[in-house]
Amino acid sequence: MSLLIVGTVAFDAVETPHGKVDRMLGGAATYAAVAASYFTPVRIVSVVGEDFSPREHAIFRGRPIDTSGIERAAGRSFFWSGRYAENMNDRTTLETQLNVLAGFDPKLPDHFRDSRFIFLANIHPALQHKVLHQLKTKPRLVALDTMNYWIEGFLDELRAVLRRVQVLLINDSEARQLSGHHNLIEAARRIQKLGPKAVVIKRGEHGATLVSGRDVFAVPAMPIRLVRDPTGAGDSFAGGFMGSLSAAGSLDQGSLRRAMIYGSVMGSFTVEHFGLARLRRLTRKQIQSRAKQFRRLTHFEL
Amino acid sequence: MSLLIVGTVAFDAVETPHGKVDRMLGGAATYAAVAASYFTPVRIVSVVGEDFSPREHAIFRGRPIDTSGIERAAGRSFFWSGRYAENMNDRTTLETQLNVLAGFDPKLPDHFRDSRFIFLANIHPALQHKVLHQLKTKPRLVALDTMNYWIEGFLDELRAVLRRVQVLLINDSEARQLSGHHNLIEAARRIQKLGPKAVVIKRGEHGATLVSGRDVFAVPAMPIRLVRDPTGAGDSFAGGFMGSLSAAGSLDQGSLRRAMIYGSVMGSFTVEHFGLARLRRLTRKQIQSRAKQFRRLTHFEL
Repeated sequence: MSLLIVGTVAFDAVETPHGKVDRMLGGAATYAAVAASYFTPVRIVSVVGEDFSPREHAIFRGRPIDTSGIERAAGRSFFWSGRYAENMNDRTTLETQLNVLAGFDPKLPDHFRDSRFIFLANIHPALQHKVLHQLKTKPRLVALDTMNYWIEGFLDELRAVLRRVQVLLINDSEARQLSGHHNLIEAARRIQKLGPKAVVIKRGEHGATLVSGRDVFAVPAMPIRLVRDPTGAGDSFAGGFMGSLSAAGSLDQGSLRRAMIYGSVMGSFTVEHFGLARLRRLTRKQIQSRAKQFRRLTHFEL
Repeated sequence: MSLLIVGTVAFDAVETPHGKVDRMLGGAATYAAVAASYFTPVRIVSVVGEDFSPREHAIFRGRPIDTSGIERAAGRSFFWSGRYAENMNDRTTLETQLNVLAGFDPKLPDHFRDSRFIFLANIHPALQHKVLHQLKTKPRLVALDTMNYWIEGFLDELRAVLRRVQVLLINDSEARQLSGHHNLIEAARRIQKLGPKAVVIKRGEHGATLVSGRDVFAVPAMPIRLVRDPTGAGDSFAGGFMGSLSAAGSLDQGSLRRAMIYGSVMGSFTVEHFGLARLRRLTRKQIQSRAKQFRRLTHFEL
């Protein structure tokens, strides 16, 4: 089943202990769409500037990604620049240029309005909400990502859209911030009361936890010996997670747990190289092989 | 098979966001011995002061724990006092009184010298080494725990004993410190070159990772909704881990993975209450039931 993804397509500059890239394609929707496209057809809604050339657009070509929802606006694309500390967890934002994102007003092409699986990547919660208003049919699954900036300054808007969301994908510090609870299980339970039945807590190098109804599932991160660039890992996770669920067309616990694994798989590939370099060159066989590695990593018998 | 445990028996004062206890029984060997005793007979070697009364000794009674290696010395028992931050991970040591520990020179009773499974809890590495010299027979498995203090000040002594150790149990920051590598898999590989074939990295609320030969196994922590006191969790993990292995009498990958689960089980119980309050009142049935919860927590099908 097609997956609708709404979010940023951007340029990033990234510096990590393993290298430096001055300008590379990035953006939450880009990572999520490419990751999801290995599982299911994707429809992407975003905005780019005049600097987004055919060279960048090539990332979507040859994949089941419908880009007719990518609007081209006057000016430059959203730009983010950051530096990762030696531990690869702490990062400093050096620069954010909103550019065309400042005027972004997501409009769904008519043939996107029947989407049943939807991922609202991290943008203004009011915009996320507007996407839902444009749907013609009741979606089966809406998942949403957000960040500290929206939790701090736009909590009412965020709460409003959360009431219409089934899955919140969020990192650990954001879960704590949104819920006011340090304990992550307690935090997830509070968040469930805001709307989402399922809360996926992304924990970076510590893996991810799913709290779905009363069920709790935890998956460790795949130990990667050389993490070159963590940028986009969480968005790749979201893409793999939602791609897997959309392909399954099911929301039972087995499908949710499997989606957590495929999310972890896609995130684990992304960190191996800068930007989309690794994610864009995967095969289904490599993905399946890494999913099996997750089983080897976690399997035990009592 | 009997498990020999050498380490501290102590009094602790602990303050956490959920309460405060001015004086309670603690010490790495105490936690490890009680945890292991649910799996296998235990022999404990330690030192206590004159303040260690029959009331404290009761913790070992009614369990398969041979306490004839607990020496009673003039003076007071080792005392540690600390405070946990709201996040339950960061802790501040308020006071350390070595007391009788300052003169500790572990002596194995003659009937302990045939021990085949040995856990050297966190004490001076030279003392850990002296224990091994007292063995009459070649041990099957020696596991060792240590801490930043010994890594910083007594690295030669630590390296010497590590050459005779098969399993190092260590927390993540200590693994990074000992190896000089931030990446934990890289860190474990370096540590393997120092002697231990298997490295168990205890990661607190993030679970634990086993690097054994080329095999990697990761187990998340059981999400505990109310963590009252993390003191002793790592030592309880070590006790469950070594108890399970000693009972199995085997060191194959399946046994090692199972030991990781039972270690995690025992640690997860300990944090539920202050000190040994939870750990001392367990049944095999509760332990088995929580091990199954770990399976539910981590199980998925592709």
